[in-house]
This record gives sequence, C-alpha cells and structure tokens, in this order.
Amino acid sequence: MVTIRDVAKKAGVSVATVSRVLNDNGYVGADTRKKVMKAIEELNYSPNEVARSLYKRESRLIGLLLPDITNPFFPQLARGVEDELSESGFRLLLGNSDEHVQKEMDYIQTFIQNNVVGIISATNHVDYHIYNEVKTPLVLLDRTTDNHPAVYADGREGGRLAARTLIEKGSRKITILKGPAHIKPARDRFQGAIEELSQAEVDFSVLSTTSYSFEEALGWAKELFEQFPDTDGVIASNDIVGIAAIHEALKRGKRIPEEVQIIGYDDIPQSRLSYPTLTTIRQPAYEMGREAARLLITMIRKETVTQSTIQMPVELIERDTTRKG
Amino acid sequence: MVTIRDVAKKAGVSVATVSRVLNDNGYVGADTRKKVMKAIEELNYSPNEVARSLYKRESRLIGLLLPDITNPFFPQLARGVEDELSESGFRLLLGNSDEHVQKEMDYIQTFIQNNVVGIISATNHVDYHIYNEVKTPLVLLDRTTDNHPAVYADGREGGRLAARTLIEKGSRKITILKGPAHIKPARDRFQGAIEELSQAEVDFSVLSTTSYSFEEALGWAKELFEQFPDTDGVIASNDIVGIAAIHEALKRGKRIPEEVQIIGYDDIPQSRLSYPTLTTIRQPAYEMGREAARLLITMIRKETVTQSTIQMPVELIERDTTRKG
Repeated sequence: MVTIRDVAKKAGVSVATVSRVLNDNGYVGADTRKKVMKAIEELNYSPNEVARSLYKRESRLIGLLLPDITNPFFPQLARGVEDELSESGFRLLLGNSDEHVQKEMDYIQTFIQNNVVGIISATNHVDYHIYNEVKTPLVLLDRTTDNHPAVYADGREGGRLAARTLIEKGSRKITILKGPAHIKPARDRFQGAIEELSQAEVDFSVLSTTSYSFEEALGWAKELFEQFPDTDGVIASNDIVGIAAIHEALKRGKRIPEEVQIIGYDDIPQSRLSYPTLTTIRQPAYEMGREAARLLITMIRKETVTQSTIQMPVELIERDTTRKG
Repeated sequence: MVTIRDVAKKAGVSVATVSRVLNDNGYVGADTRKKVMKAIEELNYSPNEVARSLYKRESRLIGLLLPDITNPFFPQLARGVEDELSESGFRLLLGNSDEHVQKEMDYIQTFIQNNVVGIISATNHVDYHIYNEVKTPLVLLDRTTDNHPAVYADGREGGRLAARTLIEKGSRKITILKGPAHIKPARDRFQGAIEELSQAEVDFSVLSTTSYSFEEALGWAKELFEQFPDTDGVIASNDIVGIAAIHEALKRGKRIPEEVQIIGYDDIPQSRLSYPTLTTIRQPAYEMGREAARLLITMIRKETVTQSTIQMPVELIERDTTRKG
C-alpha cells in the first residue's frame, strides 16, 4: 500500500508537510500544497484512518451497543443505523451487551479506547460511571432518560393500543405477558396496556416473563394456557412471544381469532409469515436506527440540534390473529 | 481520562519511556519499569488503543463482512464470531454488503484503513483486486475458494439430505425453489438436491428465485403453487422461503404434511415457531461463527494452523412439515 512517506518522496517534501496538507493545519505554501495534492492523486494515496485519527484526534468510527443482535428486532435497528452512517462515511463498531452490565461497560470502554467519535447505545445503565467518560456525542436508541438525546418509540401508547384493540374486538378475559422488568420499553408498553385494561370492563391476568429468547418463548406460551385456560385474548410482550402463543394455542386446538385473539409487539419481518399472520403494534425499527444516526451525526458536526428527544409513532398492524371489524 | 502524559509525570519519566514499557520495546531499566507500572496501576491508566495500534502497528479490531444482518441466518453467525473474539479481547467492525460488489469493496477498504488485524468475510468476490491489499489474515465464512482459509457447512450434502428426506417420506411431485444464483452456498445445496432427485423415480420442477428477502418470499411461494399446483413436496431455498411456503399452502387449504411436505434450510430460530413447525436442514451457524473466529485468531497469533478449511456438518431436523416414519 502507498504510504505517506511515498507521497512525501514523490512531492519532494517532508512527511510533516504532507500531514499538514492532509489535515489542513499549519502553514503550507500554495505551490507546495499543489505538489502534494498531485502526488496524492498520482499515487492514489488513501490516508490511513488510524493515523489521521491520531493527527486530527478523531476517527470515523461510531460505537453501537445493542442488547442482542439475534433478537429479530435489533438487526432492523442496526441496519437503519448502518445505512445512515455509511452514507456519511462513518463506520460501525458493534457490541452486544446481552443486557449484562459488565459486558456493556467493557464495550463502552472499548469504544472510548478506539477513539469513536460518537456512540449509539440501547442501554438501561446510562447512569453508570463509565458513561461519564464518554466525551463524544451519545444517543440512546430504543431507550430514554432525562439527560441524554434519545430516539425511541412511544411504548406507553403502543401498550394502550394493543389492549384497546383486543377489548374493542371482543376479548373479555385477557392475559398480558409482561416483558423483562429491567428493560424500560417493556415496562412502558406493559404500563400502557394495564392503564387501558384497568379502565375497561374486562378480566385480566398478568404472567411475568424474564426474557425475549426463542428458547423460552414456547415455555411462557405453555404456562399461559395452563394457568389461564379460559384466556380469550393474549397481549404478548413482543412478536416472538406472540408467535409462540399462536403455536401453543393451535396445538391445544383453539381457533384463532374466534376463541382467542393474540396481539404482538414490534412487527418483526417474521410476523407476516406466521399462520395465522400476527396482528401487532409496529415500531418503526429501521427508521428509528436511521433517526438515531442522523441525530448523532448532527451532534458530531456540532450543527444545531433542533430536537434531541425523538419519539417515533407506533401503529396497529391488523392481521389474522384478531377479529375483523 | 488519564493519559500517557499523566503516567509519565507521576512516574517522573518521559512519555517515550512509558511508551517503551507499554510496548515492551527498547531498553528500560528494571527500576524505571517498576515505577511506570506502579503509576499505571495507581492511575488506573488504560492505554488508548488507537495510539497503541500506531506504536505497535496493530489493533484489536477485526472486520466482519456479512451479506445482510436482517437475514435471520446471519445474526447467529455474527454472535458466534463476536462471542469468540471478545473472549480473546478482539472487537468487531461490522459491515453489510447486501451482496453488492461496490459496498463490499468500500468496507474492505475501511477495514484496511482502520488497521484491522484480521478479516472474516462472507463474500462471493474474493477474487477482486481489493482482497490483494488485505495483508492481514483473512477467513471466509459460509463461503469457499481454493485459495483461502474458510469455514462453511456442507451444502452439497445438505441439498442431498433435503431431497432424500422428501422422497423417502413419499413425495412424488417435488418443486425446488432454487436460491439466488450468485450465492455459492445456494448453488451447492441446489446441486445436491438435483443430484438426489435425478437418481430417484420422482417428477420434479425448479422455480428460480433471486433473493432471500421476507418481502419477496411470499411472492415465490404464491408462484410455486400457481405454476405447479399438484406439487406434493417443496424443497425451499432457505427457512424464510419455507415458512412462506407453509403460509401459502395453508391459505390454499392444503393439508401439511398430508398433501404437501415442505423442507427448509438453515434452522433459523423462527423455524420451530412456525405452524406447523418446519422440518429443515440445520447449519450450525453460531458454531460456524465461533470456528471462523478461532481460526482467524490462530492465524493472527501466528500459531500453527492444523486445518485451514473447516467443513461443518449439516443435520436433518425433523418437525411437522414432513410425514412421520
């Protein structure tokens, strides 16, 4: 590969001069600059980004911390972030925290050590000490606190909408599968659903779950129909759990949506391929990722941020696990 | 954050001396070394990885290039790679190529510019010029050529196994959904299936598809049953397409597996949640990711590589879209 030394030699100047041209700092005469640019062009020299990052004290790297890329909601987020960033020449350092504090701390440390120019984090632990060391712009994604720019969907409204939908379509004995307590968006949508259910004339039960894993989803679904066999409406903690509930209901010979209605959350791509197709509350995951990246880039460029907390709308997607009309 | 300057000041030595200690090059007296180490410890100094990377001409970054993280097969691969790497202190730079040559070239360039110490790539374009510039170890994942270390699953055998299964369980008019022609593993499994079908006394048809996208899968499935309405066995190009075929068959009132058997490929987590659950050929995606990372680390450490082409076994996972016994 061509190095800065080759450029200096070809242009007949010192390495320091080439560096000054590249980084546009310090005095360089017009003639010299021209010679250097010509050499760069002729050699097709592309400066080493790490070297530039040291000179200019900046890189083009962005750290992205997600809970778990194998949960189908997060690849959509990640693609949104990546597509937006790569259009502006930034690159992604990716980490999965598994919602473990220590893993998260380690990744944030790694991001800092690699001189990222910004971080996007889906974290429940932004209060931890390590985030104080983040001197670069930070955007929370799918999460909020009072103190940081954030992009998230309206979970409270999503929960309300899910509950309202089942009630309006005639469910009278509803079971909510409550998502993991330590995940804020799970709490928001749960609270929204409870608000709506409490105001309606329906019976309802809550079954607490502790993860969104495929492995465990079938277990929660089984427990649901064992503990609450006369459930005629299921508000699932997300689509994975909703698809597991469909699976278990059919296995028990229940007709969907006649005997039991089921509503999911997220609108992951798989939801339109379940049978029956899953009615759900859509979060615009890909667009959320794009928005978070856009916000971060604005902050990195020190441009004016007009809105630092962006709440994205949720939407009811009616399919075949709820009754028509 | 604590800098190398703070360490030098505290230890009463020059920055260059601290650097020599950190990078273990050049002469440093035992006493001086002790003083520096003590200062590092007391200040809890963690050296900037970019700076180290320049000094030592190495980083802890690995580039991982995947076709598309939103295809549910790839998050499993990525997690395998990440889990193995992070246990050894390496970090991931992630890129999605969408199987576009230019995007792939751009990412490889970015990896090089960020001084990655190794690259794992699921590429169909390893012959392109840019890969010549990769001076660090390179492992192909889910892909093979004759010239590079690679980790992949036995697609030919997988295709044979899929076809054999349907034939043995009684399908006589089989339709194969052929995956995208430019993706080598898709070609391998297709060829395997064709080999097996050609030797058997069954009728079969081929429907060519051009992507694995969720959006298009339902379209292929519809086309399948329109063009070949008396199909009694479907060999899907992957699980997404298999799940779409289940969906479409049920919509048309076909009983599964009595009237039509369906077999997928990959064993993505969603396959056990379809209804009926999808019989499929399992590729050990997570383990493939781990193996590729292990192989790469061995190469980075210049340890002896006993096997540079690792073929992982595929396996039939019998579920409810094929007949019993």
